[in-house]
Amino acid sequence: MRTTTAHALLAPGAPLELITLERRDLRADDLAVRVDFCGVCHSDLHALDQARPGQLPLVPGHESVGEVVAVGPAVTGFAVGDPVAVGNIVDSCGTCENCLADEQSLCVEFPTLTYGGRDRHDGSRTQGAWSGELVVRESFAYHLPAGLDPAAVAPLMCAGATTWAPLARAGVGPGDRVGVVGLGGLGHLAVKFAVARGAEVTVFTTSPRKRADALALGAVEVVVSTDVAAMAAVARRLDLVVDTASGDHDPSPYLETLRRGGTLCMLGIPPRYSVSAMSLLPQRSLTASGSAGRADTQAMLDFAAEHGVAADVEVVPASRLGEALDRLARNDVRHRFVLDLRPGADSATASAAAADDREGRRTL
Amino acid sequence: MRTTTAHALLAPGAPLELITLERRDLRADDLAVRVDFCGVCHSDLHALDQARPGQLPLVPGHESVGEVVAVGPAVTGFAVGDPVAVGNIVDSCGTCENCLADEQSLCVEFPTLTYGGRDRHDGSRTQGAWSGELVVRESFAYHLPAGLDPAAVAPLMCAGATTWAPLARAGVGPGDRVGVVGLGGLGHLAVKFAVARGAEVTVFTTSPRKRADALALGAVEVVVSTDVAAMAAVARRLDLVVDTASGDHDPSPYLETLRRGGTLCMLGIPPRYSVSAMSLLPQRSLTASGSAGRADTQAMLDFAAEHGVAADVEVVPASRLGEALDRLARNDVRHRFVLDLRPGADSATASAAAADDREGRRTL
Repeated sequence: MRTTTAHALLAPGAPLELITLERRDLRADDLAVRVDFCGVCHSDLHALDQARPGQLPLVPGHESVGEVVAVGPAVTGFAVGDPVAVGNIVDSCGTCENCLADEQSLCVEFPTLTYGGRDRHDGSRTQGAWSGELVVRESFAYHLPAGLDPAAVAPLMCAGATTWAPLARAGVGPGDRVGVVGLGGLGHLAVKFAVARGAEVTVFTTSPRKRADALALGAVEVVVSTDVAAMAAVARRLDLVVDTASGDHDPSPYLETLRRGGTLCMLGIPPRYSVSAMSLLPQRSLTASGSAGRADTQAMLDFAAEHGVAADVEVVPASRLGEALDRLARNDVRHRFVLDLRPGADSATASAAAADDREGRRTL
Repeated sequence: MRTTTAHALLAPGAPLELITLERRDLRADDLAVRVDFCGVCHSDLHALDQARPGQLPLVPGHESVGEVVAVGPAVTGFAVGDPVAVGNIVDSCGTCENCLADEQSLCVEFPTLTYGGRDRHDGSRTQGAWSGELVVRESFAYHLPAGLDPAAVAPLMCAGATTWAPLARAGVGPGDRVGVVGLGGLGHLAVKFAVARGAEVTVFTTSPRKRADALALGAVEVVVSTDVAAMAAVARRLDLVVDTASGDHDPSPYLETLRRGGTLCMLGIPPRYSVSAMSLLPQRSLTASGSAGRADTQAMLDFAAEHGVAADVEVVPASRLGEALDRLARNDVRHRFVLDLRPGADSATASAAAADDREGRRTL
């Protein structure tokens, strides 16, 4: 076994603790990855809140970047020293119709999640990337694109791929009008990708104070979704709406903003959607999307590199993880916390703060 | 004014009565149509059940065929003596984006329904085709295709166009697997059209006794939707499901029958749909469809003529309308009642019964 460190939940409700964690010895097609940065996402909070005693220890983290430090004998696509990124899934059956279509996140037998899943070979519980090292099959690792801040790439591995996929499936491009509901970790990336693809973007938010932020990201219009008149003014205007709002809510008002034939894609997964039947009638479609498969993830990374798209992040040294989780629970982040897992990150982060400010990257 | 007869509801809950009805004098682009046959549909029953005193008299009927008996001076597409068909809408604004796209049934200002609507010019209440004569703008009339039994074409004008449109939008053809939920007036036409387009059709029904009927219509498979194991066996198999079941029901089990990227189109319009969020996740879409616009209606008629598709009907002389309505309320029809409004229909229908039996057309 390989020994590393990890930030783990050891008892329900307790603060995370830095533990020693064992990773499997490399299988033939495995990489060992030194994790440098990993995103902190609402789904991590949710997993921590919901964890039951039998599921512990729990190490979250599913949007990571780092460097390959060892490779198994059958690895062909990576070498030691390669910059690498890993997302929220680390394996799938590989044989169902969805896996064969490179849609591993829709594996009919359910994909192996980066944490909280079960390894398909040895049955062990998977542990995430809030850790010094990951071991992962090379087919679920991606080359880190050059030219982007690695910390800002980390959130692309889940939030980025999740928001990219519905835009790509719809072929969003110049002339299209895209709505984005919510301006958090997912929403701000949906805006960036849609703008970079040439679309005209309308942001829907409950917070009027996010207007300037949305416009700075490239949106042409901001609609406060509780403003009935403003919502009516945008009726039948949009081709695609990507709804990143978490929690249960009525999608129907956003369906009403769609032109005939438009699509509303829900990225949140409550137990059920309740939808006005009439709001679907003008050939509108309701669909949903989770994370992305390998093809979409690679295409997203290629596009991000070409167009200079990455997340707006606040980099957090591991020692301040608890503080970041508290702020995330209050939605007090713009737009994504990224955990700096590098040895000496506390001092490095402090000294980098001035430089980061110049780059528009904020340091907690 | 022009004077004709009509089968009208005069008081809530009362039997229909044969009344004298005035139709408007022809405007420049109007046709007067002698109605020979008109479908009897669940939506007619619903309108009769829901009619309030201020909405009476109410003359149902929105799927009719007959002959042009007079034309206004600006009519260019029809001449006296032309066989003609009229559907469920008779006007629309003509200027909204949906009308301009030949989707008049989705007119943003709401189309003028054949009955129970308001004429856009004189504000009068429209009255339907259970009547000796209709007056209709020529742009909402269609040439009756040659080679088909006119009585069996009548239901194509609403049930046919309604089921055709989602198949056409999806480009259903050979190699596609289409599910049809329900085998009533709409469902049996959905099966016929999908089969004629070359698709492999699975019928979902709550009635095991409809199996032979579905197979006779060309379905390759019949699934009793209450049979959990049978439903599981068809999971992730279909490209498109057209759900013709009326009444509020959970669409989620039908979503589960779709392949990744498949579409469920609901033809019933309850107040809301409640849908399992997970069932949408594999890139599946939920959409809805009502009746069709002019382009789809014309395309449907052209296809029907070319492929010999028409409704399976039971022709009812007007004197037995009440009996037909009672049987329809019990779903005791295979698959659509059509009212015979021709003068002397009672004796004509009786004498035609033997011949009709040979043609597969049943006479009440």
